[in-house]
Amino acid sequence: MEKKHFDHFRNIVGKENIYEDKAHLIAYSYDATREHFEPDAVIFPRHEEDVSKILKYCNENRIVLVPRGAGSGFTGGAIPSEGGIILAFERHMNKILEIDMQNMVAVVQPGLINMDLQRAVEAVGLFYPPDPASQDYSTIGGNVNENAGGMRAAKYGITKDYVMAIRAVLPNGDVIKAGKRTIKDVAGYNIAGILIASEGTLAVTTEVTLKLLAKPKKTKTALGIFPTVSQAMEAVYKTMASGVTPVAMEFLDNLTIRAVEQTFHKGLPIDAGAILVTDVDGNLDDDLDFQLNQIEKVFKENGCSEFKRAKDKAEAADLWFARRNASQSLSIYGSKKLNEDVTVPRAALPELLERFNAIALKYKINIPCFGHTGDGNVHTNVMVDGSDPEQVKIAYQAIEEVFQATIDLGGTLSGEHGIGIAKAPYMSMAFSPEEMNLFNAIKKAFDPNNILNPHKMGLN
Amino acid sequence: MEKKHFDHFRNIVGKENIYEDKAHLIAYSYDATREHFEPDAVIFPRHEEDVSKILKYCNENRIVLVPRGAGSGFTGGAIPSEGGIILAFERHMNKILEIDMQNMVAVVQPGLINMDLQRAVEAVGLFYPPDPASQDYSTIGGNVNENAGGMRAAKYGITKDYVMAIRAVLPNGDVIKAGKRTIKDVAGYNIAGILIASEGTLAVTTEVTLKLLAKPKKTKTALGIFPTVSQAMEAVYKTMASGVTPVAMEFLDNLTIRAVEQTFHKGLPIDAGAILVTDVDGNLDDDLDFQLNQIEKVFKENGCSEFKRAKDKAEAADLWFARRNASQSLSIYGSKKLNEDVTVPRAALPELLERFNAIALKYKINIPCFGHTGDGNVHTNVMVDGSDPEQVKIAYQAIEEVFQATIDLGGTLSGEHGIGIAKAPYMSMAFSPEEMNLFNAIKKAFDPNNILNPHKMGLN
Repeated sequence: MEKKHFDHFRNIVGKENIYEDKAHLIAYSYDATREHFEPDAVIFPRHEEDVSKILKYCNENRIVLVPRGAGSGFTGGAIPSEGGIILAFERHMNKILEIDMQNMVAVVQPGLINMDLQRAVEAVGLFYPPDPASQDYSTIGGNVNENAGGMRAAKYGITKDYVMAIRAVLPNGDVIKAGKRTIKDVAGYNIAGILIASEGTLAVTTEVTLKLLAKPKKTKTALGIFPTVSQAMEAVYKTMASGVTPVAMEFLDNLTIRAVEQTFHKGLPIDAGAILVTDVDGNLDDDLDFQLNQIEKVFKENGCSEFKRAKDKAEAADLWFARRNASQSLSIYGSKKLNEDVTVPRAALPELLERFNAIALKYKINIPCFGHTGDGNVHTNVMVDGSDPEQVKIAYQAIEEVFQATIDLGGTLSGEHGIGIAKAPYMSMAFSPEEMNLFNAIKKAFDPNNILNPHKMGLN
Repeated sequence: MEKKHFDHFRNIVGKENIYEDKAHLIAYSYDATREHFEPDAVIFPRHEEDVSKILKYCNENRIVLVPRGAGSGFTGGAIPSEGGIILAFERHMNKILEIDMQNMVAVVQPGLINMDLQRAVEAVGLFYPPDPASQDYSTIGGNVNENAGGMRAAKYGITKDYVMAIRAVLPNGDVIKAGKRTIKDVAGYNIAGILIASEGTLAVTTEVTLKLLAKPKKTKTALGIFPTVSQAMEAVYKTMASGVTPVAMEFLDNLTIRAVEQTFHKGLPIDAGAILVTDVDGNLDDDLDFQLNQIEKVFKENGCSEFKRAKDKAEAADLWFARRNASQSLSIYGSKKLNEDVTVPRAALPELLERFNAIALKYKINIPCFGHTGDGNVHTNVMVDGSDPEQVKIAYQAIEEVFQATIDLGGTLSGEHGIGIAKAPYMSMAFSPEEMNLFNAIKKAFDPNNILNPHKMGLN
């Protein structure tokens, strides 16, 4: 980048709010994909006006710009794969601006960490349900732009279900407000709706208004052990269809159970086909027991050999232990993990898992699975020896079949992680040329000069 | 329209599926606004392929086209204000294609009547919550394109909260699928999100996949009488913030109570400042009683002088009578009714109603209000003598002030009815030139030749 551009950016934000040195550029070249591309500079805007000035200048000078949250994404959405500017919000634009108790709404800046929001609203009796696994460090701006999910999606939905309004800056520097602090709003196009999950390719988020709920007074946890993964998957969708909606309905398959047991020695049932862990919530003990009774009934009708109810918080934490430690335990199966977050309609879960098993057998590899079965979202981990190029090649072949099986069953490439650069090669499996044309036309309507996070999501 | 165009359309759909005669053209020139513009033809497509062929031809020949549901809209969204073709779905594309019990999803065609869907899914123990007042005749296609609300929005949200996927035809004839039968899907832009509430200006909906819930087993109804409307409005948002979420929380102000009483003689409390009617639902009697106890507590803390609980369905219907018959009773205040559906954050309701009262006093007119206060949505009725041009002029002045008060309090021009042609003149009060530019750019991305329902919503 030319020196005059650096000078201009320093004039906007002050020299203390821009990194140009190699060490910092490297630090901002990564996300959780392990891909890396260095930016030319990292800028910390102090407020929306800075963002607007920076974008306007970048647009006029055709400088590429990538907004970044915590860099915790799994698909490279925040990686500056074309160089240019990283806009980082963690230094200044990271605050809760308002918790409106009367309307049950929070107004926050994009750099706010998800868990900081959860804690702040729970302290006043309110509740922000979206809880991605990255909740301790990922930011609301990143959550909105990736439409983050989490454990509680089965009952409470995902980030998009809580976004009431977004303030954003368009690539030309224009500031727009999309949405309102109202439950209903049908005036004008639903701009907030399309900004969510747009991976920072359409506009830069500067403020988000989020719906809050009253915090349910009670939660109870239970765990079911199943002889086969098929039976567990049948139990998942039959539970939801029976009239109860658990907060979470998470599963671990046999390979994952074994990995956790080998790593932590907790006495897990290593011969079980699958474990389901579930939380229910509400305001009355009777209601929680009603829900757990219903779940136990459906589980047992579908082969559940043991159903454990937690008597207190310590026991609940114990039932959740295997699920919470699943991801990190899988390294016993290989040094290279291709972890996907495919999602299918819930009733397709039994067949999906059968197909994954067939893929694993075909390639003689392990594909341990766990995740958010209550909403059809399976964390699918293709594990191989990363030092063996042949194995790595096989892993990518297997992943392509994983995606094809998912799409064949009416599912999506990504339930939570987005497309970024990691899944861009697979977009043509999921979308027709006509659909890709429409995506590109929308991108052009927002960003005619293609300066904002260009070429992500398989876009032109 | 030229004869050759008629010939072409007859070739596509067959001559039995096109109306060209004056009587039918008049019948399709209206909606509930009482504005009317005649189309050149009314076409009943048999399937998506017909829709695609018609759009492609219209696009190539620059023929304007307006998709139409039941014509029950209040803002002229389905009126052919520029002539051209009306695409009507009630004859062929009006079916439930699938009720998927396992995934709790319905797949329907755009011409399906809302209530036909509700009845069909309730017959198998499922539940489609969006219930606009027009539910007996309005169509799912219209509901989606206007993002219809209803009585149950306070707890269950609105149409957009149930749309999982849309199949649609773009103006160039391309067929696209937006969304999936999955709870999570973050691959590609959220096209379904922007099609909802787009008033038929971006694409023609040919199929909708809707989320269903398990039908709650029990519902209970209660009614609270308040000395002043302010106290009732305080009770509304304080109830929601106290941790219970009633299905509905509807209100009538004093003028509306008097109008219903004068029309139906039901012994209503004509000196009350407001009535609130509320429904709660759930699976357990204890849970319903818990909710009603909480509501009664908050109501009484806010001046409620009488709280009645319905003991059975007949009593519940009785408590709902005034609300259900509010709209039609208002004619006692004048022959001309300008009815708006402004929506504010719930906690702004007390001030909103005060401002409406001041506007009524200023112009010496009646502005009876009722509606969905549980979600901040107030049906605001400016009533005047329609035969007196001076009074009609005053009514429009008052409406402009109603909108200004709403926007000042963080509200929206429309919570349910959309913009269409009726509210298009007010768009500049609610949106900046930059925001209107973005709307126009999005319109152009979908519809570069501006053939689809042009110039609605204040667009170019």
